[in-house]
Amino acid sequence: MSKLIFIGSGGHAKVLMDILKKQGRATQVIAVVSKDNNIDSNIFSNVVHLKNDDDVLSYPTEEVKLVNAIGFLPGNNIRKKISDFYHEKGYLFETIISIDSIVSEYSKINQGVQIFPGAIVQANVVIGNNTIVNTGSIIEHDSVIGADTHIAPRATICGGVYVSCNTFIGANTTIIQNKKVGKNVIVGAGVTVKHDLEDHEFIKGS
Amino acid sequence: MSKLIFIGSGGHAKVLMDILKKQGRATQVIAVVSKDNNIDSNIFSNVVHLKNDDDVLSYPTEEVKLVNAIGFLPGNNIRKKISDFYHEKGYLFETIISIDSIVSEYSKINQGVQIFPGAIVQANVVIGNNTIVNTGSIIEHDSVIGADTHIAPRATICGGVYVSCNTFIGANTTIIQNKKVGKNVIVGAGVTVKHDLEDHEFIKGS
Amino acid sequence: MSKLIFIGSGGHAKVLMDILKKQGRATQVIAVVSKDNNIDSNIFSNVVHLKNDDDVLSYPTEEVKLVNAIGFLPGNNIRKKISDFYHEKGYLFETIISIDSIVSEYSKINQGVQIFPGAIVQANVVIGNNTIVNTGSIIEHDSVIGADTHIAPRATICGGVYVSCNTFIGANTTIIQNKKVGKNVIVGAGVTVKHDLEDHEFIKGS
Repeated sequence: MSKLIFIGSGGHAKVLMDILKKQGRATQVIAVVSKDNNIDSNIFSNVVHLKNDDDVLSYPTEEVKLVNAIGFLPGNNIRKKISDFYHEKGYLFETIISIDSIVSEYSKINQGVQIFPGAIVQANVVIGNNTIVNTGSIIEHDSVIGADTHIAPRATICGGVYVSCNTFIGANTTIIQNKKVGKNVIVGAGVTVKHDLEDHEFIKGS
Repeated sequence: MSKLIFIGSGGHAKVLMDILKKQGRATQVIAVVSKDNNIDSNIFSNVVHLKNDDDVLSYPTEEVKLVNAIGFLPGNNIRKKISDFYHEKGYLFETIISIDSIVSEYSKINQGVQIFPGAIVQANVVIGNNTIVNTGSIIEHDSVIGADTHIAPRATICGGVYVSCNTFIGANTTIIQNKKVGKNVIVGAGVTVKHDLEDHEFIKGS
Repeated sequence: MSKLIFIGSGGHAKVLMDILKKQGRATQVIAVVSKDNNIDSNIFSNVVHLKNDDDVLSYPTEEVKLVNAIGFLPGNNIRKKISDFYHEKGYLFETIISIDSIVSEYSKINQGVQIFPGAIVQANVVIGNNTIVNTGSIIEHDSVIGADTHIAPRATICGGVYVSCNTFIGANTTIIQNKKVGKNVIVGAGVTVKHDLEDHEFIKGS
């Protein structure tokens, strides 16, 4: 198994480390990139603390894989920039699937996807590159989720839904069956989406 | 264990097959009834494809059990018709409980009930015949759910609730504690039900 | 392991017994305090039925631990009174964590906390004394929940949230990231909390 370098040390990073530790994979993580002077030494123990994004470039692309440990909140595209920056340099991002999630063997999970504890991915689902399926969210049968998207905690994507790329679906938001949501869309928390949403739409939280 | 015949091959059917496969029971399924010319050969492999409902009748009632693999959405009563049609012919429907659900040993799950991954059924609950307890839904302690009802994904039925027969509770809808919901009721997605609902009431999604 | 005495025999108590039984700990429970003449003999088998709160006092504080099996609904402070009454007499309350919950080893769960099936507690969370983390609720990373609080079924507490003491967060309610909720607050079911809430605020269910 590859050695892993975390990009980021905040809340999203802590959950990812927790997932890896529960899989007995903590020792794979050799370094964390973070501008913070102090990172949580309980969770990130025995890792090299890199201060700059460029410090990663001294690790050969064939010897390490990266973990994009930056969260994705509306109005903040750092996560996507991190993905693009390192992809251009030739790095791959590790796919991380919690042992406390339920993922159908009839789904297709692409590279760099992160599936968190309690999340459920049903049969015939496709999840695009680098997308986050956050804590306790549900992706029902026959749905497609694009790349670089964030399905926030406890969101419910019903059957046959299509969500495009770089879109944010807020905490505990529901998309009913067979709806289509475009790219670069933001839907806040607690919304029930009952109509298709065009590219770049912004739906305030309920 | 009985041989099983699936009635339906759509999204609901795929999740049911997935549940059975994870239990090592895929080989029990010998046939699927579906008008579709093409059924998903990845999920439904090595099964006889029957085209008509009547084709089932050539299988003796004592040798097979049926799986009602038709979903239940508002305004569509095919699932109930399928149940009634084959019951009259003497067939039994298999009870299917996902190993990824949490079902109290102090609950009573009646014949033909389908409990999906991530669903939770607490102590002293009764679930009526042929009811669907869909993905990630919760039925809290001391609640009773009638027959032929659909508790959609991520719905939350609080403690001491009574839901009657042939009722639809939408995705991510909540019924607070001790409320009563009549028969043939439809509640859309994302609703918080804080009052009793009479028979045949229709509550639009939020 | 200590012998346990349940205070209460209602719905909340049934779920707690169910959790203990699944852990093989049912025989630890030696008595139930309940004013009801009839308690569920299926769930509470082989226990002494005490009728008065004072009957517990004949059990030495060093030989038993208590389980606060009274629920917490708005406008009813019996649960808190029970905690305070027995604490003053020198009794300790048992911490009960369902094997069907997911609790990060990087969280801190204080004495008397009850974590129910399907609940998820992420990294760097603190849960205060005697708080209920009810069925299927989520406490995201870096959140702090005070003492004597009730996070009701399916509530979602996003990352970095602070909830103070003796507060009620209703079923399927969501608190978005980094918000602060004061003490003695009541938030009804199905609400999306997007602003800080002061002590003693009351937010009606949606």
